[in-house]
Amino acid sequence: MTTLEAIAGEAKSGTLYGIGVGPGDVRYMTLRAVGLVRSVDVLAYFAKRGHEGNARKIVAPLINSAPRELKFEYPVTDEIAVADAGYGDAIGAFYRATAQALGEELSRGRSVGLLAEGDPFFYGSFMHMWHRLESAFPIEVVPGVTGMSGCWTRANAPITWGDDVLTVMPGTLEEPILIDRLSRSDAVVIMKVGRNLAKVRRAVEAAGLIDRAIYVERGTMSEERILPLAECDDASGPYFAMVLIPGRGRRL
Amino acid sequence: MTTLEAIAGEAKSGTLYGIGVGPGDVRYMTLRAVGLVRSVDVLAYFAKRGHEGNARKIVAPLINSAPRELKFEYPVTDEIAVADAGYGDAIGAFYRATAQALGEELSRGRSVGLLAEGDPFFYGSFMHMWHRLESAFPIEVVPGVTGMSGCWTRANAPITWGDDVLTVMPGTLEEPILIDRLSRSDAVVIMKVGRNLAKVRRAVEAAGLIDRAIYVERGTMSEERILPLAECDDASGPYFAMVLIPGRGRRL
Repeated sequence: MTTLEAIAGEAKSGTLYGIGVGPGDVRYMTLRAVGLVRSVDVLAYFAKRGHEGNARKIVAPLINSAPRELKFEYPVTDEIAVADAGYGDAIGAFYRATAQALGEELSRGRSVGLLAEGDPFFYGSFMHMWHRLESAFPIEVVPGVTGMSGCWTRANAPITWGDDVLTVMPGTLEEPILIDRLSRSDAVVIMKVGRNLAKVRRAVEAAGLIDRAIYVERGTMSEERILPLAECDDASGPYFAMVLIPGRGRRL
Repeated sequence: MTTLEAIAGEAKSGTLYGIGVGPGDVRYMTLRAVGLVRSVDVLAYFAKRGHEGNARKIVAPLINSAPRELKFEYPVTDEIAVADAGYGDAIGAFYRATAQALGEELSRGRSVGLLAEGDPFFYGSFMHMWHRLESAFPIEVVPGVTGMSGCWTRANAPITWGDDVLTVMPGTLEEPILIDRLSRSDAVVIMKVGRNLAKVRRAVEAAGLIDRAIYVERGTMSEERILPLAECDDASGPYFAMVLIPGRGRRL
């Protein structure tokens, strides 16, 4: 019988791994992600300034040796609106410096695992490293269970049935756009709700969908909170907050 | 140090598990899914008539003991159009009988793992068992890496950047609807392409998106095939075929 470790495999030198660590519960990490987290020379991750970092927290139960760690703290998270010129400048400079730091490790022949919450190629910060480094270094991306899958699972809400069309959109969009998209969809996931919660709730009400909407905060994490959006009066939520509107397609 | 087996946990008697087995590569199964596949009393799965079943094939490297297995063969798959009355009748009767068979195992106190390709609550057949059985038996759903995550990972195509809106839709929709949805989206995943490939390709061309579209067949599986949709002249593809149109949102 092959062991789980043999199936998962190990990291190769000089390679960058974009490791999807899933929605929060360590049990929802893939075998490949686990094998890499345990074997890379350098464990790298993003974090909000002064915080441990969610991705690092998710993998904590898996770390046995003490790998070299690189923590990259965002200069800003949601203190500035994304539309501000200051945001793009600050984040752009930060990503350039981070890619350079990762490149230096890789050039020394080290294997580097960059953790990504959810799936790395789905709204992931990892993508900003990938497009800077992919022509210079071998990269392997490990898909992960998305945050939204974790949320609809814990909300006990199958999201799409039959021919349902699913729209996934960030809560950062302007209210009229949110309303328009909501009105044209069978099923909806609104990501990045956080500070946009009050606006998102207004848009869901305007689209006539408030009775079907579920609010999920930190799905699959220890502080998970799930309730009907209609009962959620908070003006804003944490970064890991989502609104789900499950589809009502064909049930056989 | 906690072992992977301890983190993954085991199945409890009399419980139904909807186990997301991911997109195809066994390394993309979650720890929880692996722990359950190896510990349930009964391993159940759907399959096309006369076939081994894709989900069963994915978990094959993990099976050490010889669990009781229940294979449920679809009476029809894509021989009849979903819109035909005959399809709904045949599938409805099949799902009723399947739910009853699962219920009998659960009533005997056995733990039952029903395998689901990708994520169980995302267009999954498991959902049709869930809504029949959830009031009568304890059910745990294990989210999985979706087929689409597997496909965009292997296509090396980050799907959503910044404020991109993603539309996920089945290729079974009518051509004008496909065109309309395509025209209004930043990023698109068209699932269930299979027999609808020629229609899907015409719709993507009509929406002016053919130069950005990627065709992925059996993503992460051994017979994986990835090419620009513009170069794919096949009239139809296998069930596990998708078309991806990656977003072009904010890159920082």
